[in-house]
Formats: sequence, structure tokens, C-alpha cells
Amino acid sequence: MNTIPPIPTLDDYRPLAGDETIDRIRVKAAHLAGMHVVNINSTYYGGGVAEMLSSLTLLLNDIGLKVGWRVIQGSPDYFGVTKKMHNALQGGPINLSKQKKQIYEGVIYENSLRNHLTHDAVIVHDPQPLPIIEHYPKTVPWIWRCHIDLTEPNPTLWNYLKQYIEKYDAVIVSREEYKQDLITPQLVFEPAIDPFSIKNKDLSDDEIAERLNKYDIPTDKPLVVQISRFDPWKDPQGVIDAFKLARNEIDARLVLLGNVATDDPEGAKVYESLLKYQNDEIRLLSVEDTALVNSLQRRAAVVLQKSKREGFGLTVAEAMWKGNPVIGGNVGGIKAQIEDGVNGYLVDSVEQAARSIVELIKHPEKRKQMGEKAKETVRQRYLLCHYAEKYLDLLNNLEIKVVLRDGKQIGDHA
Amino acid sequence: MNTIPPIPTLDDYRPLAGDETIDRIRVKAAHLAGMHVVNINSTYYGGGVAEMLSSLTLLLNDIGLKVGWRVIQGSPDYFGVTKKMHNALQGGPINLSKQKKQIYEGVIYENSLRNHLTHDAVIVHDPQPLPIIEHYPKTVPWIWRCHIDLTEPNPTLWNYLKQYIEKYDAVIVSREEYKQDLITPQLVFEPAIDPFSIKNKDLSDDEIAERLNKYDIPTDKPLVVQISRFDPWKDPQGVIDAFKLARNEIDARLVLLGNVATDDPEGAKVYESLLKYQNDEIRLLSVEDTALVNSLQRRAAVVLQKSKREGFGLTVAEAMWKGNPVIGGNVGGIKAQIEDGVNGYLVDSVEQAARSIVELIKHPEKRKQMGEKAKETVRQRYLLCHYAEKYLDLLNNLEIKVVLRDGKQIGDHA
Repeated sequence: MNTIPPIPTLDDYRPLAGDETIDRIRVKAAHLAGMHVVNINSTYYGGGVAEMLSSLTLLLNDIGLKVGWRVIQGSPDYFGVTKKMHNALQGGPINLSKQKKQIYEGVIYENSLRNHLTHDAVIVHDPQPLPIIEHYPKTVPWIWRCHIDLTEPNPTLWNYLKQYIEKYDAVIVSREEYKQDLITPQLVFEPAIDPFSIKNKDLSDDEIAERLNKYDIPTDKPLVVQISRFDPWKDPQGVIDAFKLARNEIDARLVLLGNVATDDPEGAKVYESLLKYQNDEIRLLSVEDTALVNSLQRRAAVVLQKSKREGFGLTVAEAMWKGNPVIGGNVGGIKAQIEDGVNGYLVDSVEQAARSIVELIKHPEKRKQMGEKAKETVRQRYLLCHYAEKYLDLLNNLEIKVVLRDGKQIGDHA
Repeated sequence: MNTIPPIPTLDDYRPLAGDETIDRIRVKAAHLAGMHVVNINSTYYGGGVAEMLSSLTLLLNDIGLKVGWRVIQGSPDYFGVTKKMHNALQGGPINLSKQKKQIYEGVIYENSLRNHLTHDAVIVHDPQPLPIIEHYPKTVPWIWRCHIDLTEPNPTLWNYLKQYIEKYDAVIVSREEYKQDLITPQLVFEPAIDPFSIKNKDLSDDEIAERLNKYDIPTDKPLVVQISRFDPWKDPQGVIDAFKLARNEIDARLVLLGNVATDDPEGAKVYESLLKYQNDEIRLLSVEDTALVNSLQRRAAVVLQKSKREGFGLTVAEAMWKGNPVIGGNVGGIKAQIEDGVNGYLVDSVEQAARSIVELIKHPEKRKQMGEKAKETVRQRYLLCHYAEKYLDLLNNLEIKVVLRDGKQIGDHA
């Protein structure tokens, strides 16, 4: 056998998060030693949810819990329906036909037949697997973790999903204002990044140069970048417009980098619709290469995340961790991460975005100072160990809540 | 809640497979009632392995076993390595560097940390998840199911994989001649198709016309089709060459339909390299639409599967089930399904393929007679209930074998 590269442990966070935090987390984990927890979502690839689950499950296993991760198997029809649901939860319209419900519920029923859950707790992520709770006897805590911007969910869809949501013992959202009118207890978990992942770990200048060179990305001028799925909610069109406007005052290049998630059939269409803007200075890239993401974020002069809706927007924390002040859409979780004018800029329009690009490109010293503050924000609040601690708190507390609601002990199925 | 479409049951096979077969399967399943079995492979989507697992797991759950399905989560690097391994097991070259082994073993180790297996038996599919057996105490039967053509596996790779393979209690291959020199007992399971899936179920003429129309596929001339991943082993180039040659004698159109599997980074490149052949009569389609596969196989005048290596080639059985005599490459599992000149043709060259296309297009009555024989071949041997029975036999027998090898009872972990 060969040497397998080591997997990050909780102790690797000591130099970043401090001894006090790490010791406290160890104590909380000790109370849950051996607890068997399963996460269920709809894809291993693409997007912040999958990335976070990948690292979080390993970290929680490192500290003594037994945390698994299952993925829903679905048809293209199913992913078409759930993408529409995702958009409608963010406020878009939906024609919630009987056929769509049948596809959605049918795929989830099939998946329930293949997943024999004997866990101590079940955490279901986002709307895709939500109805699966219907198909199991409810003997342990079930948690619904919604990573989506719920500022204005489509009422028709919400009403339909609510019948499932209220079967859960707790709902977790990413921002206080995403809480809904529910009988279920609701908690707020701001998500976090893994500083040791391929996407976020330190890179040498040579590694960065080599990676950018691989994709023919020139570094002769300052790089303005947005790294985000090709999705209208991420406003790639607005980024292009803002860049063109800023370009009247500064010299730079724009790179838009995205990938396509298994559960996002729209992505390829949006990407193709934007290709017409590609020229010597504007580059669109649709590749799955996390080392390129890391390199671009480290080499960028300006990073944008000009979203119109954003459940949280982990790409903002990622770029901030690399010392960038980010220009972010003034929405959702981006507002939590960016303090306007201090560690980045919050923008409401193409014009504001353009002005912020010009400001940061023209003043490298200011860019550096704001970038240092951005990194410190992430170090204090958005590292994965902080996120893991929230789950430990929930799992430590949930048993009590379930007992209170049922008026009997867990495991007492009289 | 809405009406969820019913999931096929064993009893649905009665009219196809006969009462005797179905009753026998029920008895065998009764001996294994409640047995918890997990399948592990590397993708839910694309290719025969995923399709078979999707239907097989549901069918085995229908008859009282608890059969699960887990999928390996991997990086693009990992899928790059495992695709090279797949090719090398089929006889291709491989540079099995230390770095490749580290990526392969590292991803599998990570996955073992997230998968807490407490099953009565574990079935691991193909080389991708193979080393995962290393990371568990060996207390229950572990089976390695290899779906690949093992006529001439690359010796360097085989030698490396053998250290893992021989830890298993049984190895299943798809053809007698794929058996290797191993201390592990080896069995042969010919795979099978699900006659009730979207890909294989009956369609009305209207449904077929509507689906072909959706993709602008004209039906004014006889259709020659190959439905297979865009992979050099499937020889799409040879199909195009054979069609061009046949085209001198007959009037027809060619459609090459493929999709891209999550674990196949090569597919997109091969597809793009073939686009230059596209013209009025030759159409290349890269879409994930199983109803289109079904429609094309039902509407086709001639179906090819001109593979150069083929673990089994389920697309052959699929097309035969729809009454097509298939023109198949004279390799691997295709040889098992096609009796040359009786229910299809086996070909060793572009010229032979071209002659067979001409023969079938020119003689519709012969085509029909051979096609009826093709359908009967599948009805007798290649339906999923037959395949499920093989697993039941194995699971019923394995306990005995493991007891014999260990010299103690299962569950006796003294």
C-alpha cells in the first residue's frame, strides 16, 4: 500500500481558531461519541452544499461521531423539477403541476426503498430529498437543513413543502431573516469554509502561475473575477456589464469561472448564452477544477459575487480568506460576510459594482488593508470548525427538545 | 400526497418469465428475508452498471431483502485515474505512478470514513471502489463484481489490483473467459435488462414519433443507430465508416446517440472529435434522455453495437428486446447475446458491418424474423428477474463458503 495523504483533523485548526475553541469543541464531541448520523442531499458535486458536506463529515468523524452522507439518485426529470423548486424558493414562479409532484415524490419514494436508515439522527439538506421523511417510522430526530435564500419563497410551493417540513424536529436556515412561519423550531447556522481543501489551501506563486497558464489566463493586467455557477441568480450578465463600464477608467481583464452541478440542468444554457461576450479581455470558463478556483482567487485584484439571491455565498468567504475585499450583491448571506467599505463592498446595481471595481484597482494599498480585514472576518467566524460546533450543539440539545415535544423518552415506542 | 407511480414488482415478470421461474425466485428470496446488503459503485448515472443497480436494488427490496446502494464520492483527479484503470483492464496501457495510486487510495480511504457499514454482505462493483475492503474489519461476505471485459487485463494494473481482489470472498465476472488466476472463487453472471424501465417499456407509435420529433430526427428514410457512450472502445468512428460504405448501396440515415457519465471525463472529447462527420444524413447526439433511447431502438431499421471491447453490452439486449437483430462487434459479451446470422450479426471489420447493414436494410422480412428470435433470446435469458436469481443463489451459498474458509460461524467474532 502507498502513503495516503493525511486528512485534516480538528487539531489542524488550532493555529487558526485557537486552543480555547478547539478544546471546547472536543468536549462537546465527547458527549456524542459513536453517535450515528446520516446526511442526505442530492449531489456530491458542484456548489457549496456538497463541498461543505465533504469536509464536515470527515471532520465530525475525526472527533468521534459516525457521520455518513447519502445522495439521492434521480432522473433528469426529477432534477428539472427540483431546480424549478430551488428557483421558486428564491422567489421565482413555478407551475406546480400534478405531474411534477409525482416525479418528485416518486423519485424520493424509490430512494427510500434503497436507504435503510438505522441512525441516531437524520439531516436532510434542501428541498430535493425533503419528502423522504414520509417513508420512515419517526423514532429519532430528523433535521431539515435549508441552504437556500428564503427571503420570499413562492407561497404555492412553500405551502406544498410545508406538509413535509413540519414533520421534522428542527429546521436550520442560513440567516435570521430566512425563518418562516412554522410550528417546527428554527435555528440559524451560518456556513463555513474548509481552509485545508484544494480550493482554499495555501499555494505557492509557482503553483498559481502554472495553473493559470494551463488555462491560458494572462496575468499582464489586473484580474477581475467572479467564480460562481452560471445561473441568472448569480448575475453573470451584471458582472460583464459592470466590467465594461469600469473598463472606461481602468485597464484589466475579466474571468468568469463556473462549473455545472449534476442537479443543475440550466447551467449549460446560461453559459452558452453568455459566450457572445467573450473577447480578448473577457473570458468565460466552464470547468471543474478547484485548484484553478484557488489560484484565481489568490491572483485576482478584484473578486465579485454579484448575486441577486444568495442562500449564503461561500465563494465570498473563500475569496476573503485569500485576502480579497469582495464586491458582493447586497443580498442574503453576502450581507452577513461583507461590512460595506470595511472588508469589501455591497452593491445594488451595475453602476455601483463598476465604481467599486475602479476604486479597488486604482488603490492597491487600500485593497490590501481591506483584504486583511476580510481574512480576519473569516478566521473568526467562517471556518469549518465553527460550523461543526453548531452541529454538535444542536445534536447535544435535540434529544431534549424531542423528548419535550413527544412527552416521552427517545426509544420509548410504546 | 399524490399518487406515486407504482414500482415494478417480481410479479410483473410473471407474464414474461413464467410462473415456475417467479415461484422459484420467491422461495430463494424467502431464505434471505431481511438480509441487509449494500452495493458500492462509483456513479448513479450513465452506463449499464448504474442502470442495472437502480432496478436490481428495487426488485430485491420488493422480495424481502434490504438492499442498499452507495456511490463513491471522488475528485476529477480520481475519476481520471479510474477511467485509465478501466481502459487498462480492457487491455490498454497505463502509467501506474505513485501519484495515481495515492489519488485512488486516498479517495477510497475518505469514502470509507463516511460509510459505516453494518451489513450482512457487501457487493463492490468494478475497480473504482475496490480498495475500500482494506478499511473494514472483515466479518461478513464481501463480493467483487467486475463488469469489465477482462480478456487481456494490463498485467501491471492487474498485479496491483490483485492485492485487493484476493481479500474478497467471491469475484463475479460477466463471461467465462474473463476468469483470472486468483485464489478467490469466481462466478459468471450474465447481466440483464429491466423490461419496465423508461428505456425498455412499451411505447406507442405516437410516443415514439413525438420523442424523435423533439430532437429533429427525420424518419423519412430507414434509421441506422448506435446508442453507446462516446468511447473509442465502442468504435463510433467504425460505425460512421461502415455507414458511409453501406450508403453506396442503400438509402438511410445514421444516428449516434451517447451520454456522458460522471465517471467518464473522456466522453466529451471523443464526441467533439466526431462532430466533423455530422451532415444531413449523419447525426450525433449527446443527451441524457432514456425515452429517446427507447424510441430510437423501437424505430430503428438497424441497430449497431460495434464495440472493440465490451464487458457485456447491455445495449445489445435492449435493442434485441425491441425486436431488432443487432450488428455487434465480435467481442466480449456481445458474442454471448448474438448468434451470428440467426438473431443478429457478429462483425470483425468495418466492411462486414457495412455488408450487414445493407443486408438488413434490403430485406425487411428477414430483419423481422431475426428480430423476433432476438426478442425471444432476451426473454429467456436476459431479463432482470434472471439476474436477481443469480444474486439470491450466491447469497444463499456464500455463507457456507465463508464458514468453510474461516472454519467458524458467521457472527462468531471470538
